[in-house]
Amino acid sequence: MSTYQPKPKDHFTFGLWTLQNRGRDPFGVEVRDVFPPVEIVRTLSELGAYGVNFHDNDLVPIEASLQERDRIVAEFKQALADYKMKVPMVTVNLFTDPVFRDGAFTSNRRQVRQYAVNKAMTAIDLGAELGAEVFVLWGGREGTEVDASKDPRQALQHYAEGVNYLCEYVRNQGYDIKVALEAKPNEPRGDLYLPTTGAMLAFIETLAHPEMVGVNPEVAHEQMSGLNMYHQVAQALYAGKLFHIDLNDQKFSRFDQDLRFGSENLKAAFFLVKLLEDAHYTGMRHFDAHAYRTEDGAGVQAFARGCMRTYLILQDKVRRFNADAEIQGLLRTIHAEQGEGTLEFSHDSLKTLRNLAFDRVAEGARGHGYEQLDQLTVEVLMGVR
Amino acid sequence: MSTYQPKPKDHFTFGLWTLQNRGRDPFGVEVRDVFPPVEIVRTLSELGAYGVNFHDNDLVPIEASLQERDRIVAEFKQALADYKMKVPMVTVNLFTDPVFRDGAFTSNRRQVRQYAVNKAMTAIDLGAELGAEVFVLWGGREGTEVDASKDPRQALQHYAEGVNYLCEYVRNQGYDIKVALEAKPNEPRGDLYLPTTGAMLAFIETLAHPEMVGVNPEVAHEQMSGLNMYHQVAQALYAGKLFHIDLNDQKFSRFDQDLRFGSENLKAAFFLVKLLEDAHYTGMRHFDAHAYRTEDGAGVQAFARGCMRTYLILQDKVRRFNADAEIQGLLRTIHAEQGEGTLEFSHDSLKTLRNLAFDRVAEGARGHGYEQLDQLTVEVLMGVR
Amino acid sequence: MSTYQPKPKDHFTFGLWTLQNRGRDPFGVEVRDVFPPVEIVRTLSELGAYGVNFHDNDLVPIEASLQERDRIVAEFKQALADYKMKVPMVTVNLFTDPVFRDGAFTSNRRQVRQYAVNKAMTAIDLGAELGAEVFVLWGGREGTEVDASKDPRQALQHYAEGVNYLCEYVRNQGYDIKVALEAKPNEPRGDLYLPTTGAMLAFIETLAHPEMVGVNPEVAHEQMSGLNMYHQVAQALYAGKLFHIDLNDQKFSRFDQDLRFGSENLKAAFFLVKLLEDAHYTGMRHFDAHAYRTEDGAGVQAFARGCMRTYLILQDKVRRFNADAEIQGLLRTIHAEQGEGTLEFSHDSLKTLRNLAFDRVAEGARGHGYEQLDQLTVEVLMGVR
Amino acid sequence: MSTYQPKPKDHFTFGLWTLQNRGRDPFGVEVRDVFPPVEIVRTLSELGAYGVNFHDNDLVPIEASLQERDRIVAEFKQALADYKMKVPMVTVNLFTDPVFRDGAFTSNRRQVRQYAVNKAMTAIDLGAELGAEVFVLWGGREGTEVDASKDPRQALQHYAEGVNYLCEYVRNQGYDIKVALEAKPNEPRGDLYLPTTGAMLAFIETLAHPEMVGVNPEVAHEQMSGLNMYHQVAQALYAGKLFHIDLNDQKFSRFDQDLRFGSENLKAAFFLVKLLEDAHYTGMRHFDAHAYRTEDGAGVQAFARGCMRTYLILQDKVRRFNADAEIQGLLRTIHAEQGEGTLEFSHDSLKTLRNLAFDRVAEGARGHGYEQLDQLTVEVLMGVR
Repeated sequence: MSTYQPKPKDHFTFGLWTLQNRGRDPFGVEVRDVFPPVEIVRTLSELGAYGVNFHDNDLVPIEASLQERDRIVAEFKQALADYKMKVPMVTVNLFTDPVFRDGAFTSNRRQVRQYAVNKAMTAIDLGAELGAEVFVLWGGREGTEVDASKDPRQALQHYAEGVNYLCEYVRNQGYDIKVALEAKPNEPRGDLYLPTTGAMLAFIETLAHPEMVGVNPEVAHEQMSGLNMYHQVAQALYAGKLFHIDLNDQKFSRFDQDLRFGSENLKAAFFLVKLLEDAHYTGMRHFDAHAYRTEDGAGVQAFARGCMRTYLILQDKVRRFNADAEIQGLLRTIHAEQGEGTLEFSHDSLKTLRNLAFDRVAEGARGHGYEQLDQLTVEVLMGVR
Repeated sequence: MSTYQPKPKDHFTFGLWTLQNRGRDPFGVEVRDVFPPVEIVRTLSELGAYGVNFHDNDLVPIEASLQERDRIVAEFKQALADYKMKVPMVTVNLFTDPVFRDGAFTSNRRQVRQYAVNKAMTAIDLGAELGAEVFVLWGGREGTEVDASKDPRQALQHYAEGVNYLCEYVRNQGYDIKVALEAKPNEPRGDLYLPTTGAMLAFIETLAHPEMVGVNPEVAHEQMSGLNMYHQVAQALYAGKLFHIDLNDQKFSRFDQDLRFGSENLKAAFFLVKLLEDAHYTGMRHFDAHAYRTEDGAGVQAFARGCMRTYLILQDKVRRFNADAEIQGLLRTIHAEQGEGTLEFSHDSLKTLRNLAFDRVAEGARGHGYEQLDQLTVEVLMGVR
Repeated sequence: MSTYQPKPKDHFTFGLWTLQNRGRDPFGVEVRDVFPPVEIVRTLSELGAYGVNFHDNDLVPIEASLQERDRIVAEFKQALADYKMKVPMVTVNLFTDPVFRDGAFTSNRRQVRQYAVNKAMTAIDLGAELGAEVFVLWGGREGTEVDASKDPRQALQHYAEGVNYLCEYVRNQGYDIKVALEAKPNEPRGDLYLPTTGAMLAFIETLAHPEMVGVNPEVAHEQMSGLNMYHQVAQALYAGKLFHIDLNDQKFSRFDQDLRFGSENLKAAFFLVKLLEDAHYTGMRHFDAHAYRTEDGAGVQAFARGCMRTYLILQDKVRRFNADAEIQGLLRTIHAEQGEGTLEFSHDSLKTLRNLAFDRVAEGARGHGYEQLDQLTVEVLMGVR
Repeated sequence: MSTYQPKPKDHFTFGLWTLQNRGRDPFGVEVRDVFPPVEIVRTLSELGAYGVNFHDNDLVPIEASLQERDRIVAEFKQALADYKMKVPMVTVNLFTDPVFRDGAFTSNRRQVRQYAVNKAMTAIDLGAELGAEVFVLWGGREGTEVDASKDPRQALQHYAEGVNYLCEYVRNQGYDIKVALEAKPNEPRGDLYLPTTGAMLAFIETLAHPEMVGVNPEVAHEQMSGLNMYHQVAQALYAGKLFHIDLNDQKFSRFDQDLRFGSENLKAAFFLVKLLEDAHYTGMRHFDAHAYRTEDGAGVQAFARGCMRTYLILQDKVRRFNADAEIQGLLRTIHAEQGEGTLEFSHDSLKTLRNLAFDRVAEGARGHGYEQLDQLTVEVLMGVR
């Protein structure tokens, strides 16, 4: 099983907040001790991760003075150097503080929007200082419970103004940073604007600098809406917009669980890994999850190890699937009549289509062999072939 | 209550298929007699509708000869003329026939894709002949149960080829027709590609002629994913892409129910009507729903009347909401500090933001008055103010 | 609108915790000040409520000394007397403290189970002291994320042991208190045991004293599973087990929202009120919800007022529905052939059934008039008839 | 892999309807040929199944004359004998025919209820003739879309009358047959009464002969409500009421998919198999699912083979889990302080509880090791340990 040992070249990253999670939930108080950032860096390094990401306030408390901020950042940088850990991504917390209770970029109050943009710029500065290449933006309070309170068209306008400002700022500062927007359908708000990766991809096309903005799809967030994560990530890749990804797991259509990657929907996790590997995705494999509230520090480490280990096991399953003669033979048959490029419009092609000799009934009677294909897939997944 | 009497100027339309629905479902056979298209035209006209829409095969059976087709269409045109009914939209059935069992535009088989495009062009021709301005495309079989069977990136490529071909065809023929894509998350396939209106809006931006392609959001389809229809339609309006709309209702996160408009989620229906009215949406108010399986012909008429009547009642509620002094007073307070245009990037604005004097704690302590606002909304809805 | 003014005889109650809610959620810290129990009693009394309910630790902190406890309880009793407020129900908090992180009655650790039972007895003692007639038990941590950790059959056995112990204790002490079990499908645990009111009703029949145990269905908890609350409460009434009820609201199939009663699903709320009123339910109308995180103290009061006001408006709608000649006429037709008591087994009835003259096809062709019935219901709800 | 070859002793059964399924769905017509019952018997026998179950009308059309019925049954019996196949269960179709459009046992029309009971008795007679030991009852139309149409308390009363009549009939005829009730939350009705296995278990306790009535939980039906099937079946076992089981699969919170067992939620399927095996469940492993609409006859066979094969693979995983030294060591630690029988009420035990020396804070700080336990479970499932 030594093959499932994570190494920096696997590009696994975790959020500081994932190991910082102390097990508080809507019905319970904290159960675990504080896990200081520097200790997290060391732990993740020892476990084989490549890097660590964070929200501004995971590292620097919102109330910190500039002096405290500098001391904290210096100490953190030293830890990164000591343990050879990178910070490939940084993000901003626009949801914890009461000031954002009705949104940050979509607040009905101008000064809140301004403050939010300012806070995001400061986070970007910190990211740039630590070498981050991606700035993730999750608008955790951009939404409503009371639809009478905001015109959603205006809210999108405000949202766009905020993102546009950040893009201009990044350009102005000459930072080599891309922006990745993260969707979520609800929780903590009743409904969040731009609730799916698809909605985010559409929103990006309305921005001033779409070329520097992409998405950060999260498994659990899409599954909260009952959507197929594999299809959503494929659309992001199709659009050239998969800038980052949040790996975790979730039972469909319920509260945000942020479970260990692959712990609930193994088959869905397999296809997601297959897509990332087959597409030669070069970005980070970032885990945004946390240990169950039942766990202590040892359980937090088991959680982190498990995320990476399951990814590597699934990566191995992908190799087996791609090398399985029976599966690949079936797929060749299935794809034999696929054709390509046949649907380009021209007078000739139009004539061809209009005169298509096609036996609809015979074609409709063909079976596709998908039960067998799926069974073989499941058996690869269970390790019996 | 005569104010709730629908008139052609209200622009209500129904699909032929909605009144044709014979009550068949996965566990039961048909319970109602055939309702011939000509009779439906008469009935809808008498009920006050503006027009009727259809899938090609709602009117012309898939097996019809050209001669039969011409006879059927002529008879239908006569009925439209007799009863002063329009056909503002036409669509194509790419899901009933066994030939589409694994998709139409995304089939793994080239000839199926070609046949599907051809069928869609024929439907467009028929629409053009009858004066339709919108061609709706719902890819009811574009998806999978077995994710091993298709690369979803290639499926999107195939999907785009199909839509691009249709756009070129419309341009080539000089038709004044726009294309409206309709999303659905699942059913009849395990998962459908482009499952939400957001995903469709993003997909449109990858097409060859995005300017002639928009969306046709359906209430029930978004609610199947637990999404807020009001927000999704707002995004379509924000993107200038609301070309058509399907009004109906649905309990969240379950099978596609296609219930009478406003029969389940009154508050959601109210905000949707409010958005369409406030935005001065000029398109059709199209109902895509059907009577319960418990109903006979009289029930089908009650269903159609109910859809229109509830829309008009909600339209009246919107007027009351917009004229309610207490509500509007609350909203003025809520929006008092909204400001506009303050987030355009410049050296000056950057300096302003960086030096923002802002009392985060005081702002965070403010209450927003949304419980009161929502209660007043609910009371308008219940007719007690 | 003075008719919608709540009065003590309406038997509205709130949990202390509902007004105590400070707006903390999984992604945000507290936004509202502490609202002391005595102040809550006064406020609720002024708003027209009948009483106030609480978890042990809503009133007495878990760390309080006996002396502090006595001081707090005395002060609280004085407030109840001063403001003529009752405590019809008491409950126990078995979920906040870390000790319950893997369950209370279903913990894998004997001492945790013993401690939980002891804590519950102390809560019952306090309830008895204050005149409570119902002890609600919500096992907020009785469940799992990791199904390998517990045999669910043994967990149910442990759960039953705990409830049985409490029943014996109540009998032993001679308290006039009934136990009401509250179900929830998930959150905070991945899955909670006995996830629906139906499951609770079944569990009760396996207890040592089923006659003293009933249920406390909560609107939001059933709707989290997409279930029809009206049907679930009807089953509880049918079984003679509706001992208490938690009124609030919730969008289906998502996180526990605890929204203001009637704020999301008006039609569902209407039928629930109709059932309680038609069945002459004599228990409390208890609200278990809280104000949005956007609110301050004024919003908390608006929330509480709104819950009661909406109940009273719906009560009025029920009267109108029951008095509406057209609706009642339709219902008489629908129920005309209902018959009663015809299905008691005997040789004669068997012969009757075996020789039933019945025109299946004719009966199958009948329409039921439900579209019309539902439309009229919706119109009553919207106040246009 | 020969170990995964099904044999009659494995007690696998299929419904006739599962292989009869012709791929019709709400949006598409039939795609597969008729598969005659006698051919199904042969096929299932060759695949290694133990028996075949059916609804009355799967075998005998509703319009069949007595003579036709006798011919069909004789031919079927011969096939059973020829291929050594059993009929362990029979059920009745109370949902396909239009006569049941508003329910069978809960219809508002007395004659429909009488007809339904009569039809069920005839099905029971047929089952008895063929040696069935279980009669499954799924009330596929017992529910509503329009809650104004029925008092749900009366509906339950009618439901109980029907089941009671059948029980008396079975007793009267001296049949050795038990009744198993099957729950489903919705589809084809908007909401079905008694929507969960829990609700059914509770309902059974209100019947005249609860001792002869149990449940038939179906994986997909519980998962449509987002419930944990493992927990629901455990409750049925706990109550001594698991008389039959329907194995299949389903994505959570959507339409009824009836997918191949284990094809979607492998971990959930594993725990279900574990429960059945650990509890030494002696009943049938019945599959109620069908092949995808993409399949032809070969695909239908692949589907049936896959169901059984996956069960056997999971059975093997259960053996490995139960024999895994690291997992069992972890479980011994987790359960070390479980204790038993400590919560029986007595003056002594009360005194013990009241004086419990217990360090709440220390206990609350303990970690439970569940991340590690779950990771090891997932690794057993993936075949890497």
